[in-house]
Amino acid sequence: MSRHHADAMPHVNTDRLWQWHMRMARFGATGRGGVNRPALSTDDIELHKQIALWARERKFDVEIDDYGNQFMRRPGTDENCAPLVSGSHSDSQPTGGRFDGISGVLAALEAVEVMEEARIRTRHPLEIVIWNNEEGVRFRPTQMGSAVYAGHARLGPLQAAVDPQGVSLETEVDRLRQAVDFASERSLGKPFAGYLELHIEQGPILEEEQIDIGIVTSIQGTRKFEVQILGEAAHAGTTPSRNRRDALVDAVNVVKALQILFYDPLDLVRFTIGQFEVKPGALAVVPDNVFFTIDFRHHEDAVLKSLGDQVKAVCEDAAERCNVSVTETRNAHSENFPKSVQKIVETACSARGYTYRYLPSGAGHDARYLNAFCPSGMVFIPCRNGISHNEAEYADPAALAKGAQIVADTLLMLDEQLAS
Amino acid sequence: MSRHHADAMPHVNTDRLWQWHMRMARFGATGRGGVNRPALSTDDIELHKQIALWARERKFDVEIDDYGNQFMRRPGTDENCAPLVSGSHSDSQPTGGRFDGISGVLAALEAVEVMEEARIRTRHPLEIVIWNNEEGVRFRPTQMGSAVYAGHARLGPLQAAVDPQGVSLETEVDRLRQAVDFASERSLGKPFAGYLELHIEQGPILEEEQIDIGIVTSIQGTRKFEVQILGEAAHAGTTPSRNRRDALVDAVNVVKALQILFYDPLDLVRFTIGQFEVKPGALAVVPDNVFFTIDFRHHEDAVLKSLGDQVKAVCEDAAERCNVSVTETRNAHSENFPKSVQKIVETACSARGYTYRYLPSGAGHDARYLNAFCPSGMVFIPCRNGISHNEAEYADPAALAKGAQIVADTLLMLDEQLAS
Repeated sequence: MSRHHADAMPHVNTDRLWQWHMRMARFGATGRGGVNRPALSTDDIELHKQIALWARERKFDVEIDDYGNQFMRRPGTDENCAPLVSGSHSDSQPTGGRFDGISGVLAALEAVEVMEEARIRTRHPLEIVIWNNEEGVRFRPTQMGSAVYAGHARLGPLQAAVDPQGVSLETEVDRLRQAVDFASERSLGKPFAGYLELHIEQGPILEEEQIDIGIVTSIQGTRKFEVQILGEAAHAGTTPSRNRRDALVDAVNVVKALQILFYDPLDLVRFTIGQFEVKPGALAVVPDNVFFTIDFRHHEDAVLKSLGDQVKAVCEDAAERCNVSVTETRNAHSENFPKSVQKIVETACSARGYTYRYLPSGAGHDARYLNAFCPSGMVFIPCRNGISHNEAEYADPAALAKGAQIVADTLLMLDEQLAS
Repeated sequence: MSRHHADAMPHVNTDRLWQWHMRMARFGATGRGGVNRPALSTDDIELHKQIALWARERKFDVEIDDYGNQFMRRPGTDENCAPLVSGSHSDSQPTGGRFDGISGVLAALEAVEVMEEARIRTRHPLEIVIWNNEEGVRFRPTQMGSAVYAGHARLGPLQAAVDPQGVSLETEVDRLRQAVDFASERSLGKPFAGYLELHIEQGPILEEEQIDIGIVTSIQGTRKFEVQILGEAAHAGTTPSRNRRDALVDAVNVVKALQILFYDPLDLVRFTIGQFEVKPGALAVVPDNVFFTIDFRHHEDAVLKSLGDQVKAVCEDAAERCNVSVTETRNAHSENFPKSVQKIVETACSARGYTYRYLPSGAGHDARYLNAFCPSGMVFIPCRNGISHNEAEYADPAALAKGAQIVADTLLMLDEQLAS
């Protein structure tokens, strides 16, 4: 293993990286400091084109696949090697921020730019990727582009996906190809040598602990449930407690029991009741119907199983007078990144003197689907107050630069260590 | 005190009373066993006219006041006496039953009919009243007719009240007067010697205890509150518990604390959370906003005060991380009927060998506003499963007859005992 490449890696350019962020933030800017950039909207296509033009100026090939994933390829010294790929997504939530997704694309871009400037060659080709439709806002499901690319979803039904206005994904991919008319076709599933993705943490841990880099151990698994509680409506003034079958009273009992089930002194369990609806919803009428959702996540599959498997019984036992039904709507296991890749990121942090910690990802990311496809890893950087999916989302220029630096350094080390 | 009148009182006619109910149930019949009879709708006006025609056949005066309250007057032997009045309302909830309100009107009608047949004369004139707009569905507020008549509400704003289609109360009272064109004007506030109202219980107690007659001690007071809990929205996957300000978590804490406050082993407290709204209401977002209502009722003002005065502090103390604001939207004291009238009802029950019990009224009734106007009382009869404000509402013909009998007997005793 030759060390000279990584040692030779110069610093990324903090200002240039920040300017890239500010340029990209104009596409879909909301006027309140955020962005609204649906997947393959005109704004999003313009963004893709800007990055494709940057690549063309450097004589990199640009490729677009049938799902609108766009790849910018810097050649390697051994073109028989599969590429090392880094990037993320460019679409946003309706009131999204300027960093979610795009910062991972720009970290990869800056890493490649620095290698260009320093004339550092890698054995593997390096590819910057923009995954399409990660947020799942315009088309369903989330992480569509990466899931299809890596073979997790079948082609037909997803390509026919339409947005709420009835515009199909296929139509919009055609529009992207027209805008980036110098791009060539990319086959889905074309192999990667490795995948690395930078993302803002979207949580408060790194900022609270004043840590530069999060080394992502896993994308936590999730189980989702719907709970329906049926009682009997009654007159609030005349009906004694003993005659009531109050759905809200039992719902509160059920929620309390679930809180006990999911209580975790380590604070690693994520348990949320986000939707909670009470009917008929009249001041003087005892409610007969409560519906609520459970969003449960954990990075260990054993915990997902042991706690998740108790949900139904806990709900049923806690209800005293009403009928309870529990439906599981999703069960996705935890995705663990290989320790070898995590270790390389750690080495990169140590070499730069950056502080780091290992942590699981609470949110889902494109890297979830790449992990079974090639050796994969993720790098988190802090974001202010952990706020994301919000126009107030903010990441510091220095934090973005440190993240891009680790992406650059890690890519070089992966280039040395990974097979072709 | 002469006993001969009450002793002489013959039995009411069970079949005739039931037939009256079934005739009245045709006005606004829903086809599903219930009625939809908004105040002074065409159906309701037709009902008024039928009863007015019955009165005219017996040469009773019919009077209508400016709020659409209609009085049918059987003369007394001493026309210097103020009338003894009995009745209730004829309007219904949108999916109402065939007994709520109208059974009180018909009990008074049957009582008078039996006196006519038996040629029993009373010293006081006897009046059957149909109060207008008790339900408060078509016009606001509830119990409008009786409240205005007894001087609890000012004339101007209420008379200008309009229904959801913009039709004014005044217009509809004119329509009633045209339909009942033989009615004369009644002045608001014209004195009563006494007031007696029969109503279905709208609760399960009499039926459960297999009791014929409820002697109503009071109309329980009520305090109503709105509680607003404000936290902070956050990502369900990434935000640790320690960083959350989950409005639903605190709302559940607040509800639990309120349940402890209002817990009553005697089961006389009526505590209901009927409206409960959670925002933003998305599966994967920690809620930042919960709004709920409290409907609290009790027949003792001391309990209303002691518990109601603690609501604000209990809510504020129970919330651990969110901001809580509590607004009291209504505070109506308990209305206690005079023991003298209750005692006469008890005597009537004993004389007939009917089972009875004392109980407070959970719901509001027109008698609430008459009680400060003249000596007043209420008689409850059982209804099936305590169900009311529902098309399934049902009262047994025999139960209706026993109630009307007690109205008749009590009116005769009041006639003997009350001053002019």
